[in-house]
Formats: sequence, C-alpha cells, structure tokens
Amino acid sequence: MPELPIPSYDDILAASDRISGYAHITPVLTSRTINEFTGGEIYFKCENFQRAGAFKFRGACNSVFSLTDEEAAKGVATHSSGNHGQALALAARLRGIPAYIVMPENSPRVKVNAVKGYGAEVTFCESNQQARESTLHKIVEKSGATFIHPYDHFNVIAGQGTCALELLNQQQDLDAVFAPVGGGGLLSGTSITAKERPDAVMVFGAEPEKADDAYQSLKSGTLQRFDTTQTIADGLRTTLSERTFAIIQNYTDDIFTVGEQEIVDAMRLIWERMKIIIEPSCSVPVAALLNGRFDCSGKKIGVILTGGNVDLDHLPWQ
Amino acid sequence: MPELPIPSYDDILAASDRISGYAHITPVLTSRTINEFTGGEIYFKCENFQRAGAFKFRGACNSVFSLTDEEAAKGVATHSSGNHGQALALAARLRGIPAYIVMPENSPRVKVNAVKGYGAEVTFCESNQQARESTLHKIVEKSGATFIHPYDHFNVIAGQGTCALELLNQQQDLDAVFAPVGGGGLLSGTSITAKERPDAVMVFGAEPEKADDAYQSLKSGTLQRFDTTQTIADGLRTTLSERTFAIIQNYTDDIFTVGEQEIVDAMRLIWERMKIIIEPSCSVPVAALLNGRFDCSGKKIGVILTGGNVDLDHLPWQ
Repeated sequence: MPELPIPSYDDILAASDRISGYAHITPVLTSRTINEFTGGEIYFKCENFQRAGAFKFRGACNSVFSLTDEEAAKGVATHSSGNHGQALALAARLRGIPAYIVMPENSPRVKVNAVKGYGAEVTFCESNQQARESTLHKIVEKSGATFIHPYDHFNVIAGQGTCALELLNQQQDLDAVFAPVGGGGLLSGTSITAKERPDAVMVFGAEPEKADDAYQSLKSGTLQRFDTTQTIADGLRTTLSERTFAIIQNYTDDIFTVGEQEIVDAMRLIWERMKIIIEPSCSVPVAALLNGRFDCSGKKIGVILTGGNVDLDHLPWQ
Repeated sequence: MPELPIPSYDDILAASDRISGYAHITPVLTSRTINEFTGGEIYFKCENFQRAGAFKFRGACNSVFSLTDEEAAKGVATHSSGNHGQALALAARLRGIPAYIVMPENSPRVKVNAVKGYGAEVTFCESNQQARESTLHKIVEKSGATFIHPYDHFNVIAGQGTCALELLNQQQDLDAVFAPVGGGGLLSGTSITAKERPDAVMVFGAEPEKADDAYQSLKSGTLQRFDTTQTIADGLRTTLSERTFAIIQNYTDDIFTVGEQEIVDAMRLIWERMKIIIEPSCSVPVAALLNGRFDCSGKKIGVILTGGNVDLDHLPWQ
C-alpha cells in the first residue's frame, strides 16, 4: 500500500493563513473551580464558539479553499450526520460553490435544517455506512463534486491542526495539549502541530471506554476498527483511518479512556461552572483530567473543547 | 422624606477601582445570527461569566470592600433566594469576614450549597417577605453585621454601574445599552454610567409583562409596587425601591416589556447560537430586541447578560 500523504507543520501554517478571515479566532477560557479540582492550570480552547459550532469548520474551510477554481465550480460533497456536514455547507457557501451533503434519514431535524440553512443540497439515505457511501458515490459521479472526507483527508487534518496552533500562540507556556479522538482528524492535526513546533509540547488523546478503538490500536500497534453507537459522545463513535492511525502512532504521547458517567458529569460541570455549552464529545478530555488519568499538578494544560451543537431537548443527565 | 443618597459617576469609577482584582473583566461577545435577526450590531456583556455567576458580585464586592475594618469585622448580612446571596458570601470570603445569609426554606438545594460553599452562615426562614425581614433583623441585632440590601443600597448600585462602565470602555461606539430591570439596582447603575459619561449613550430597561412594575411606574410617574412570582424570569420578580425609581425616572430613556414565550425563545436562541448559558432574566432585553420593541437597524447596542445560574434539571422549554 502506498504511503498516504500526511500534512507537515508548514501545511498547517498554510492552512491557518488560508482560513484566516473565515474562521473565528476562538477564545481561551479558564475556570478556578476546574483548576482546583484538577490541581493544574487548564486552558480551554473554545471551539464550541467556532463558526457552525465546532472545530470541524477549520478542516472543511481549508479543504474548500484549497480547491482550484475548476474543482470548486463543481462543488464539494460528503456524508455526515454531524458537525462536518454543517461545516462543509458553510465553507462552500463562503466560497459560493455547491455543497452536497448525504445525511441518514433519521438525522435530527435541527441538524438537517442547519445544513439546509447554509444552502447545501441534502440527500437522505438509509442509516448505515454502505448506504451513505453508495449515495455519496452517485452524487460525486453525477456532479463531479470533490469528496471531502470528515477526517481521512490531507486538507482536513491540516485545517484541524490550526486549532492547536492558535491555542499554543494564545497561551505560550503550555506543557501539554489534550483533544478527544473519534476518527482522529483533530488529534492528528493537533499532534503534528504540538510535536513539529520548535517548542514541542506533549499531546494526549481522550476517548470513551465504549469506543476505545484508538486506545486499543495504539496499545496493540495495529489498527483496530469497530464502529459503535454505545457512547453518549456521539462525535467519537467513528474509528481511525490508516492515515490518522499512522499520525497518532508517530506523534501522540498517549490516549486515556473514560467511562460514560464520567463524561456526563464532566459535561455538566463545565455547563454549571463555566456557563458554556459543550457537546458530550468535548467533555471526554475534561473527564480524563478530572478523574486523575493524568497528573496535572503544577502543569499548564490546553484542552480543545471541540463543539457546542447539542440537542437542548435531550440532555444526557435527564 | 429625606432624599436618598444616589451614586455619582465618580462613585462608580471608585467602585470599579475597588473591585478590580476581585471581579472578572467579563468578555463582550457578538453573534452573526442575532445581528441578522435584529438588523443591528449587538454586543453582549457576559456577566454570566462573572464570579459567582452573575453581575451581583460587583455590587456585593463594592459594598464589602467599602466597609471600615471595624464594620467589616462584624460581617455582612442579607436575605436572598438568588444570586445576591452567593455574591455577598463570596465577597465576604474574599475579605475574610463573616456573611449571614437568610434564605427561604424552599430555596433550591444547589443555591443553598453554593452559599454555604463560600463559607457563609445560612439561616432558613419561611418563604415570605415578612419572615425574611424579621429573621434578618434578629441576625443583624445579634451580630452587628451590616445589612447589604440586594439593590436598594448606595454601594450596590455603584458596583452594578461598573458593568456598563467596563462595557462602554470595551466597545466605545455604542448607541445604547440595555439591561433587565427587577429591583432596579443594575438599571440604576447602568443609567448613571450611561448618562453621566462625557460620551453619554441611550439606556433602556426591559421587563417581563408579568412583572412590569418598573414600566408602570415610569409611565404613571409614581412608584408601583407589586411583587409577583408569575414570570419565569425569577431574577426580575422584585419591585423598584424609592431610590432606584428616582434614578430610573431621571436617567433611563425607556422601558420595554416582553411576554413569557418571547423570554423563553430568546433564552433558547442564545443557548443554541452563542453556546453560552444564560438565565431567563438575561434574555428579557434580548427578547425586546428580537421582537422589534426597539428599532436596532444600523445601531450598535450593548446588552448586559446578567447571569448564568440555571437549574439544569428544570429548563423552561421542557
């Protein structure tokens, strides 16, 4: 198998330049309470305030604005039941090109409306991976649109790497950066940024115990693939790709896992004490820090809060 | 009746200096969506990120740190079922003095725990105004503590005025500032700041239709007092005092009222689009702007988001 291209730190710098003016520079917040609870100084990079509500906009935006004019004219396409679909739809609108989003027919109405609200064309399919891929394939065949994979994509990974870049520029004395891991796009970009900078820092992933494919892959040294719908952290149900696994194996210091109740408790703590809305997926690294998976004492730690798109009618503690 | 002392702009500047280092300088956030919906540029002053979760900390802190050492040694006291109790408890802890908080026996456990968590002594009473006042009176008699009224208090009003001061320094070209009105402490301080600055701006209050005593007082020219528990905006159920009414009559440009459903819808919109947690009371001015009570087009408007202390088990849209 040929080696898959992997973004360099320079590619991440270029991505940062490319998305500048489109993506928000999101704030970094702190909480006395959470510092007391963990014993460290925790710096939260608030991608829940990013456009379209999640860090996914960075990768989508970098991908859309990396296309040639000829490619761009035919549009972009993806399958997504989550934040990547909204992010790609918004990025396409900003470039003024078509976006084709394949969504499972049981997607929450609020997500479908958000994608449509950005002007994308939504095609529904059955709720399984095969239906998603075959539906997408037909659309790409017909339109000539470029498929932008949610995470197994050079420009998406480079775009996601801009988040840690921004964080490390905003708070220059961090000892480590934590990110959740689902398909591994964010953790890959974060890891490249963290390790390829002149002032390299430690980088850790956090994953639900019930979807611990990345943890198992890292420990066993071979890619473990098992999709699950069991964890409440719905953004982290996907598995690594060959490419994101290779990057994480090479660059990431370790991955920690946490239980479902720890995830819900950490999410609620952030809501109650920081007064910000984060998705369950965001709270996975927070849960790892709150529950002693990593000794924070005396350390300055960046945590990427990945998104804030939550169904307010169905909260996990209800 | 003797005239009640009213803080000047200089008193507010002094308060700002006094609480500096204790109170957070809270961020000012914007939202494309809300700008689109209103036609104006709305600048949200995020007091939901203030210490103890609400602007109330400003007035409490200014009051506590205005005491002489002799007064302070005897502590401070108040009755509160809401944010003022937490704020005063925290301010007292920061000065290292006792705080005595009278709370209705049916207060939510989360609020009681928050007050106790700051080290205050809680005394429960029956849930009516007379019981609150007589219980407080006994405590003050016995301890010699200084009663810090939630809003009818010179130093509290001066402290609340620091919020608009900060906002007008952070965003210097505002046309108007909006604040909710309950007892009128915040709107009084905001109005003095807005009108006494060299670059005076318009200042408006917003109130639930179901607790529109300030609106009725302003329209009739005489103080109307009627407590109500009917509105979901629980921070705005109290009525103006003679002092806050006099200030509002003198300085505030107008008061707008909104319905209960408008309040809930505005609150949910802020949660969904801005990813921040605000109390129902905060969304009253937002509801006024979203529902055309004031023509925002082409204007830059500051809105004070007063607090973020919400019972996450009981959300108003559930």
